[in-house]
Amino acid sequence: MQVNLRELRAADRAPLERAIRSTGAFNEEEVAVALELIDAGLGAQRVDPYLFVVAADERDEAIGYSCFGRTALTDGVYDLYWIVVRDDAQRFGVGRKLLQATAARVRELAGRMIIIETAGKPEYAKQRAFYERVGCKLLARYPDFYRVGDDKLVYVFYP
Amino acid sequence: MQVNLRELRAADRAPLERAIRSTGAFNEEEVAVALELIDAGLGAQRVDPYLFVVAADERDEAIGYSCFGRTALTDGVYDLYWIVVRDDAQRFGVGRKLLQATAARVRELAGRMIIIETAGKPEYAKQRAFYERVGCKLLARYPDFYRVGDDKLVYVFYP
Repeated sequence: MQVNLRELRAADRAPLERAIRSTGAFNEEEVAVALELIDAGLGAQRVDPYLFVVAADERDEAIGYSCFGRTALTDGVYDLYWIVVRDDAQRFGVGRKLLQATAARVRELAGRMIIIETAGKPEYAKQRAFYERVGCKLLARYPDFYRVGDDKLVYVFYP
Repeated sequence: MQVNLRELRAADRAPLERAIRSTGAFNEEEVAVALELIDAGLGAQRVDPYLFVVAADERDEAIGYSCFGRTALTDGVYDLYWIVVRDDAQRFGVGRKLLQATAARVRELAGRMIIIETAGKPEYAKQRAFYERVGCKLLARYPDFYRVGDDKLVYVFYP
């Protein structure tokens, strides 16, 4: 599968919404937040706290993306807010490529650390396995954070 | 010292800026963020993610405040963004009263957990001692988060 990594464009919104929904991992509030950030990333504002890397297929259709930004009040910490790959494009290393491209952008911006928050619930086992496979380290666990029985896990990736 | 806990009002902005600066604990970026949240709290928007409790002295002048809000994507978690007491009004239990009033508001809103992030640097020893004295539990430590040598500490308070 040929994958091209590039900037976010307005035409990506619909395919990225399909990619987000295709994973089955996000509830409606989460989908809404993800789309808000995409809209902010497409906005006219120049001082945008949301940065994006988009993965596009050979027809230049967006099949996944990462959304990240500098963490306020830190010197060189970035939060990876979302990393999504359309379900039928998974298993081709697209997520790893997105993370590597994100890390390269963060390095250019003098970032020292990428923080990734994810959930401990069973439905997120695939996501946790991905983060661990690509070299993220578990930094903290907040018991019952998202809801009772669903912990928050915080990973760090050193770019 | 007689302390009254009440809602945020427009006239509180200047005294609260004095209170924030009086502590000597915040740099200019931190002061700017604190004031942005106060301005958001004073804004016309009804669906405001920032909630406030203000501590006022016997002349109704604001001498401290807490700023908190629901944590997105969680069921019943609140973040305590700021809790500030003017330096010459400290040691009278105002911080503890603000935290208790904040916890009461969070309980009314069906909150289960209040998350407090603070810094590990020596200048914040007084803040950490406060959180530990009033019953917050250390949940996580992120090494070198704010800057190299300045960890992030995450406390939880059960309202």
